[in-house]
Amino acid sequence: MFITFEGPEGGGKSTQIQMLAERLRRQGYGVVMTREPGGTAIGDQIRDVLHDTANTAMSPTAELLLYSASRAQHVAEVIRPALAAGQVVLCDRFADSSMAYQGYGRGLDRAMLAALTAIATGGLTPDLTLLLDLDVERGLARRAERGEEMNRLDLEAVGFHQRVRAGYHALAAAEPVRWISLDADRPVAAVAADVWRVVAERLIA
Amino acid sequence: MFITFEGPEGGGKSTQIQMLAERLRRQGYGVVMTREPGGTAIGDQIRDVLHDTANTAMSPTAELLLYSASRAQHVAEVIRPALAAGQVVLCDRFADSSMAYQGYGRGLDRAMLAALTAIATGGLTPDLTLLLDLDVERGLARRAERGEEMNRLDLEAVGFHQRVRAGYHALAAAEPVRWISLDADRPVAAVAADVWRVVAERLIA
Repeated sequence: MFITFEGPEGGGKSTQIQMLAERLRRQGYGVVMTREPGGTAIGDQIRDVLHDTANTAMSPTAELLLYSASRAQHVAEVIRPALAAGQVVLCDRFADSSMAYQGYGRGLDRAMLAALTAIATGGLTPDLTLLLDLDVERGLARRAERGEEMNRLDLEAVGFHQRVRAGYHALAAAEPVRWISLDADRPVAAVAADVWRVVAERLIA
Repeated sequence: MFITFEGPEGGGKSTQIQMLAERLRRQGYGVVMTREPGGTAIGDQIRDVLHDTANTAMSPTAELLLYSASRAQHVAEVIRPALAAGQVVLCDRFADSSMAYQGYGRGLDRAMLAALTAIATGGLTPDLTLLLDLDVERGLARRAERGEEMNRLDLEAVGFHQRVRAGYHALAAAEPVRWISLDADRPVAAVAADVWRVVAERLIA
């Protein structure tokens, strides 16, 4: 079973993945936790190219293809072997993040992104995708509560993150069996209880 | 005008490109000579990942996406700006090489390769592609004349190179205006005369 976690930063994905992994292991399941971008040695080398501050001339398409190459390696080297070995794979972000952030957020052609995702993943789709949904203004309010000052870029970013969130909602609506949307603006234990309920149903079914 | 040279190794592409560039420059044309893979600093970093001997676990799809990323950067940073500046771009191998070698030669899905090429190039297609065509057996005979010993891999490679050549013929047949096939098994000057005749016709037209 291949389970991905999606949603904005600050929605608590990594905490929920950790809690779910522990609960699954107590039940006797083999669990692999992984994340994108990265997850492999080759992916790390690709990330170095992406992050090299000298590479200011990098074209948006080249960047997208490098992320896709990293994803292809991640699928081939980590995710598919783990699934073949009967393990539950929990992945923090997957191809849906590209569609939400680069497609809906940045406005890149979504049909092109979908074609590229199909190539990179070889058609591998998560069995279950949990959207830890959070209001953008609420996320920003949390930041303010922590004393982080708002600047012009933060204000610009509101629109971007609202497009990303709307994109997530569109993706979830288009595939209502695969996607389950959970309100992440609740105590960790309440969210974890919902995550477990959904996963347990799918594992038994 | 964007002119690409395709065909097997040993067909004399680099010699013909050099001669054509000199003749165009004598006529007053601005000329950019380039080649794939590579052609940019970012492309060189990607090539390092591709060539790293430690990366034996690299998946075929990741490899293909890395080559595509390098091509996207090459198009954005070198080819499109040169064409926009009114220069004639002469490129030693381009996307057709991927189709011939990885599609027809290695058997990768050709529709997938075409989709990936469209993404990497942003739809940029050569105005003219010169196929310097050479019989596979004749190429091998030339190698034997030079005293290179044939081994099992060479014999395996005959079938591969025959598939690549058949692929080039199929590509040329599908786009007979863009592709011009020239018999490369002739003296350099004779091939160069044909190259010039074809290019001059297109430049005047």
